[in-house]
Amino acid sequence: MRYSQYIVLVVRHRAESDLILVINCGSSSLKYEVYAMPERTSVGRGQVERIGAGGVILQESVSGQYRRERPVPDHEAAVRAMVEALVDEKDGFVDSLEAITGVGHRVVHGGERYAQSVIIDDSVLQAIEENIELAPLHNPANLTGIREAMRALPGVPQVAVFDTAFHQTLTPAAYLYGLPRELYEKHRIRRYGFHGTSHRYVANEAVRFMKRSPENTNVISCHLGNGASITAIRNGVSVDTSMGFTPLEGLMMGTRSGDIDPAIIFYLLERGYTAGQLNDMLNRQSGLLGLSGVSNDLRDLEEAAERGDRNALDALEVYAYRIRKYIGGYAANLVKVDILVFTGGIGQHGTRMRERICNRLENIGIVMDYRKNLENGPRRGLISRDYSPVDIVVIPTNEELQIAIDSHRLVKPAQ
Amino acid sequence: MRYSQYIVLVVRHRAESDLILVINCGSSSLKYEVYAMPERTSVGRGQVERIGAGGVILQESVSGQYRRERPVPDHEAAVRAMVEALVDEKDGFVDSLEAITGVGHRVVHGGERYAQSVIIDDSVLQAIEENIELAPLHNPANLTGIREAMRALPGVPQVAVFDTAFHQTLTPAAYLYGLPRELYEKHRIRRYGFHGTSHRYVANEAVRFMKRSPENTNVISCHLGNGASITAIRNGVSVDTSMGFTPLEGLMMGTRSGDIDPAIIFYLLERGYTAGQLNDMLNRQSGLLGLSGVSNDLRDLEEAAERGDRNALDALEVYAYRIRKYIGGYAANLVKVDILVFTGGIGQHGTRMRERICNRLENIGIVMDYRKNLENGPRRGLISRDYSPVDIVVIPTNEELQIAIDSHRLVKPAQ
Repeated sequence: MRYSQYIVLVVRHRAESDLILVINCGSSSLKYEVYAMPERTSVGRGQVERIGAGGVILQESVSGQYRRERPVPDHEAAVRAMVEALVDEKDGFVDSLEAITGVGHRVVHGGERYAQSVIIDDSVLQAIEENIELAPLHNPANLTGIREAMRALPGVPQVAVFDTAFHQTLTPAAYLYGLPRELYEKHRIRRYGFHGTSHRYVANEAVRFMKRSPENTNVISCHLGNGASITAIRNGVSVDTSMGFTPLEGLMMGTRSGDIDPAIIFYLLERGYTAGQLNDMLNRQSGLLGLSGVSNDLRDLEEAAERGDRNALDALEVYAYRIRKYIGGYAANLVKVDILVFTGGIGQHGTRMRERICNRLENIGIVMDYRKNLENGPRRGLISRDYSPVDIVVIPTNEELQIAIDSHRLVKPAQ
Repeated sequence: MRYSQYIVLVVRHRAESDLILVINCGSSSLKYEVYAMPERTSVGRGQVERIGAGGVILQESVSGQYRRERPVPDHEAAVRAMVEALVDEKDGFVDSLEAITGVGHRVVHGGERYAQSVIIDDSVLQAIEENIELAPLHNPANLTGIREAMRALPGVPQVAVFDTAFHQTLTPAAYLYGLPRELYEKHRIRRYGFHGTSHRYVANEAVRFMKRSPENTNVISCHLGNGASITAIRNGVSVDTSMGFTPLEGLMMGTRSGDIDPAIIFYLLERGYTAGQLNDMLNRQSGLLGLSGVSNDLRDLEEAAERGDRNALDALEVYAYRIRKYIGGYAANLVKVDILVFTGGIGQHGTRMRERICNRLENIGIVMDYRKNLENGPRRGLISRDYSPVDIVVIPTNEELQIAIDSHRLVKPAQ
């Protein structure tokens, strides 16, 4: 995503606000945003790109745009570059680091230990380290980001917000695979689920938006981005989710296959593919991209389908069909469904995809108002018919804000 | 299954009946049954066991029990042993081979070529051969059985009835995986589905039993045996099924995992398991057996769970939960569901498992009458509440009879 695509609601914060710095540290980039709390308003955001390679720092806020290109050899340098940008005399938007009340970190994998966000201490650092095995691509970078931020902002409390935590409420029936028991007990192989922060955020927002209370509201949330997952939420609690041991399982995604017959892997291994090739294929060359042979971008696919490209149309149909199948499966499990939420790039902007998905879900009480859906576009809004038993809503996700909310709650608990 | 567990309704056939010999030839056993048509009555059945090893021939009919132990080195010898038993002067039940009107063969894989049963000619033999790649364990034995039966009964028309044929009506949205397109086009990797003959039989019987017509009846059929699959049937036509490219996908089974995160395979390959070990694990050491660590037999598991064995209870819960999830997914796809069918060893005899599955499906119109379910036991019967929008029925499956029906229709078409 290019930086210019960001749309940020930027406001000046009041002096008495708490500032929460939110950090999402990946292997080659570091994204950050500062929220004024409890107003929940973003006062600025930025990112350090190409860590280890070229190095670019971009930032925007009410104080203006900030852009530097210079070597950022490692994550320590990336955090230093972030700090410099934040307090830059001309284009920075934080007076001094002392103004920051707390730092919230996105951490991908909390394993079975964390069912909610937590203030980081040595035992938390150790637990994140122990989960590197389960998230080898993400947890190491997350951990580095935390350590560097602790060094750069000594004395400022740091909070870990886990992608997996929201799904720790799944029961064994939902999280166990039909595998030999010791794979769970020894190798910790089970459904963890991901995108938890997003599902939790949009479910809470949907409940607020519909003026309901979470204790008696069941939600199915569809986070449809380049990665995609769907979660069944009973009375505020996640009870099933489509991503599993890794983010590969579940819905078909931009370039990930989602559910397949596991025997296909053995079949292809026997025909000369290596495990590495297949792993790469299933994660990076499959999904909308692989099936269509056209693109993983929904707009490209819809244009191609419009022009009569059969493969593009197949990819769109498979995509929608599999989401419908999960919605039905979760509806059966939830006994009653009150709200169906769409979010993520495709969930929020893919108006026609939303229609494709909901078309024919009337049987299970999901009745879209196609005109409302079209008119609503990407905004927060209600797009079901008045008489639909299930409310269908669009809620733009905001994981950074959810991280800021969690972090603020932990570092400044309500008196 | 021990032979003595067979319960056969055996009747004398009238002289004017057509006799159809049904053959299910596996790698080390050959099962056969003779039906009098159009009465649809079994006149006798038998099996040749331990082909290539010891060799045992068992048969029962109105004429009595027949049992021989003697070397059966190969499938040619097995077919010869079957023929001898059939026409045995004392305990046989067919006067002469001339009395046989046609032979129906179970064939596992018909690929994309066969959407229904077909009289076998050279091109059919060749197609079955070409599908060996897709069903390396089954098609070779099926083919050998056909060739030997053609030799033993020259001039008698032979029919192939494919496990996959019923599911050839799936649309691309249901049969395509989210994989690079060329895996379908070059390697024929797609959802084929299995148990088609059973799903077709019980769906037809359920429609008859409920005095409906197939053209306006939607059915979800659960074939729950040691292998297990579930099929969505719209107006007599299969529109989705849980087994996929192979019988490993879908529901959790006796010893098969069913759906898992495909990345688990890569995770375990990296930790020293070989592909062969994992293939064996997922097919033979997983499912109810692996997850419980107790047994793949439902009765053992229910006893263990009763005694407080937590792992056995987990296995039962996972088993039921996953079936519920599929029922919900298919209900969403079918728009309306008229009949839910249970069949197969567990589907027919697992009274408590049926209860476990249907408990909480009321939301989607599936309302079991728990007392009727208990009282009905394994018999053909209606077990839903009077006011249930969906009729729930138990139908004992009979693939051999379906093969006989298909074969009779093809070799003696109605004038």
